[in-house]
Amino acid sequence: MTKIEERLRRELGPERVITDRQELRTYECDGLAHHKVIPAVVVLARTTAEVAATVRACADERVPFVARGSGTGLSGGALPHADGVLIVTAQMREIREISAADERAVVQPGVINLQLTRASTPDGYYYAPDPSSQQICSIGGNVAENSGGAHCLKYGFTVNHVTGLEVVTPDGETVKLGGKALEPPGYDLIGAFVGSEGTLGVATEVTVRLTRLPETVRTLLAAFHGIDRAGAATSAIIAAGVVPAAIEMMDALAIEAAEAAVACGYPPGADAVLIVELDGPAAEVAAQFDEVNRLCEANGAFEIRIAADDAERALFWKGRKSAFAAVGRISPDYIVQDGVIPRTALGEVLRRIDDLATGNGVRVANVFHAGDGNLHPLVLFDDAVPGEAERAENTSGAIIDLCIEYGGSITGEHGVGADKAKYMPRMFTDDDLDTMQLLRCAFDPDGIANPGKIYPTPRLCGERPGKHRAGETADRDGAEVF
Amino acid sequence: MTKIEERLRRELGPERVITDRQELRTYECDGLAHHKVIPAVVVLARTTAEVAATVRACADERVPFVARGSGTGLSGGALPHADGVLIVTAQMREIREISAADERAVVQPGVINLQLTRASTPDGYYYAPDPSSQQICSIGGNVAENSGGAHCLKYGFTVNHVTGLEVVTPDGETVKLGGKALEPPGYDLIGAFVGSEGTLGVATEVTVRLTRLPETVRTLLAAFHGIDRAGAATSAIIAAGVVPAAIEMMDALAIEAAEAAVACGYPPGADAVLIVELDGPAAEVAAQFDEVNRLCEANGAFEIRIAADDAERALFWKGRKSAFAAVGRISPDYIVQDGVIPRTALGEVLRRIDDLATGNGVRVANVFHAGDGNLHPLVLFDDAVPGEAERAENTSGAIIDLCIEYGGSITGEHGVGADKAKYMPRMFTDDDLDTMQLLRCAFDPDGIANPGKIYPTPRLCGERPGKHRAGETADRDGAEVF
Repeated sequence: MTKIEERLRRELGPERVITDRQELRTYECDGLAHHKVIPAVVVLARTTAEVAATVRACADERVPFVARGSGTGLSGGALPHADGVLIVTAQMREIREISAADERAVVQPGVINLQLTRASTPDGYYYAPDPSSQQICSIGGNVAENSGGAHCLKYGFTVNHVTGLEVVTPDGETVKLGGKALEPPGYDLIGAFVGSEGTLGVATEVTVRLTRLPETVRTLLAAFHGIDRAGAATSAIIAAGVVPAAIEMMDALAIEAAEAAVACGYPPGADAVLIVELDGPAAEVAAQFDEVNRLCEANGAFEIRIAADDAERALFWKGRKSAFAAVGRISPDYIVQDGVIPRTALGEVLRRIDDLATGNGVRVANVFHAGDGNLHPLVLFDDAVPGEAERAENTSGAIIDLCIEYGGSITGEHGVGADKAKYMPRMFTDDDLDTMQLLRCAFDPDGIANPGKIYPTPRLCGERPGKHRAGETADRDGAEVF
Repeated sequence: MTKIEERLRRELGPERVITDRQELRTYECDGLAHHKVIPAVVVLARTTAEVAATVRACADERVPFVARGSGTGLSGGALPHADGVLIVTAQMREIREISAADERAVVQPGVINLQLTRASTPDGYYYAPDPSSQQICSIGGNVAENSGGAHCLKYGFTVNHVTGLEVVTPDGETVKLGGKALEPPGYDLIGAFVGSEGTLGVATEVTVRLTRLPETVRTLLAAFHGIDRAGAATSAIIAAGVVPAAIEMMDALAIEAAEAAVACGYPPGADAVLIVELDGPAAEVAAQFDEVNRLCEANGAFEIRIAADDAERALFWKGRKSAFAAVGRISPDYIVQDGVIPRTALGEVLRRIDDLATGNGVRVANVFHAGDGNLHPLVLFDDAVPGEAERAENTSGAIIDLCIEYGGSITGEHGVGADKAKYMPRMFTDDDLDTMQLLRCAFDPDGIANPGKIYPTPRLCGERPGKHRAGETADRDGAEVF
């Protein structure tokens, strides 16, 4: 590594390059904190040229590189490589353009999600994707993970909001994908790049759609005895053709945690609460809000509160948004899981998660985006109790198996990263995975861009996969060593 | 070709394989009828296995293949290869599943766009992308071209509605991309495949989102003296935060043609008409419809008609939908152009198109999706008059240059195909195009999947592009021979 260190110091200046072991520890993990790797070198990039110079150095020396924004990811996508360079984009925080006429903003990747919304508000706009970490997570990280959030039910994921990217590819070239227009000719590499978790290169500038602030926002909180009823209400709302901005659900244990942490004052005795938010033109929201209210009642809500003002609305959300951290009040340790199931299976899957928890002797709190079936079970445990961590891990893994069994997905919005690569073969056939890896090999034949993430079996890129047909006897596995 | 012909007859049965020269002529062009090439062989596929067997035969013999649905494309995307196999998917017409609960349909690629809507209507759903050719165009062709339509302003393009694909890749493998869920983990190859115009393989099964039929649809027709006023009204509607299902514009010459063909009875003396359609919940539509009406008046509409019922609404659309064909009534020949400009530049660009037409001594009728700046200038000419065809071609090309000059795109919804590959370097740098071709080479290293389409300079796929950096002296062009 000495050679690449020297080159980076020379090309970028010594203050951009960290190699002191103690300083490197700052970057040993992202939000998935139980995976830790100390990188060999950290580069604090400020410009596209600095990112490109770093990647070129890595390409020339065949040294792995990993990009990192704010480091809030929950699947270990920004977990460093022990022999690699970690490229930190957190200092690339310039908002380059906000154009209300075009409904677009152009930002550097280190810009914080909520900052962009704040900067757009004076023009009557905001940036719609809103991960729970929006106060701290970066747009670049959102692009890597195709981040979602509570309001993605109506507004879609990051990929639905990115129209242009400047990208440094794994060979160090700087290219433009897309632009301000929708649907340019040629291959839509924006779609492939957003959510590629750093395996196709590093985004150095991002052009996003801005969304007009809604005329009205109305929010209600409905409390239920029996979590099935909350699930049925969710399905009924969607089946009625209403698309709320958000439908969030919390179960009794999650409510207990939130009350302990932020005293949100949810209706006592609830097995589940739904937070339903509608936004849009006042006339539409008024009509649909009555419908949602009626459907919650019809499905057995024992109390419905309608936010009278922004303060009360903020209080409804405070409980939900603090839920992950709040669980720390009722359990020393916990695992955040992220999986997707069909909405129609909500009640059944939640019962089976409960059975799993009981069987494994752990507790599971459920907080999730009910509207799109995106579960976030929090598996509680105490690392000090021998065997509990393992039982929690098993429970968390079994929940993912459940999601697959019901035709869902191993991740809704946290990404695959280092954490879930092992589950990919349960969702996809070898041929499907091979086809995806064609793209990876095309961009990164030497396998230096965030290796070990997403795909469980790295492939020797010189070999063309998918050439094994009936009647051929080639040893397929022979091509799959790294 | 004898060898591959024999193999195809043997594997698929002789009735699936056409080699008779007269029969082959049926397939010599698609909707871009002035480009004609007779293919060497036509295969009429019925199943995924038949498509896969055909592509495998082509891969083994390194014979080019081109897929074709209904052949209605307007950029020559399905133009055959003289030494290649044309795979016709028009007989793959099975609707395999319509699931209202999942809001999904699964279809074979030959299913006609409008058929799918008709089959979904009893459940209260429809398939939203609606190209003007929807009565005859196939879903497979829509996938290849990422087709749009009048209502894509609100509902998005084909890519926004496809969630899963079964694809035969250029080496003959059958793989699944995506599924019924949104945003699965791994690379989003759906985005890249939709709109890849047959260069990454052949779609053999398509899973699409179904859209709930709106509670209400309301349509108005506004007539203007001065096309600028119609442009200003369009911008004002969008700026007001209204997203109509469609905003269509026709100019005086297009109106003249439509009147001659279908007697649609638009207000006499109009320089431009706008058709604005709103759909959605009744409460929202009612409120926004008043706003649209007001904005048309404020921008100088001299007559506004509101469709009283479905019959009158159909009459408004009849003029618009017949406009392309109607132009045949007032001109022996015409070229349909397809380009995109920023909405805010509508008036200015239309004036410059008018100047171009005058300068070249041809007439241009404008019919277009005003809401998203997608122009369809129809350049009229008489092939019997020496030099007119050339002047029309020049005018049509100059219009594309205008679109690029204003920061727009060389195609809005018709694709690049054989027709516009030459314009791609005007929109993209060499590095950008190289990066796109990485994907093509990964899927199709031998260059047999619809060669010559989209990209102007086919690349020797063994060479890695993008390796030329400052200070290197390699002859870039040397890597680009085919």
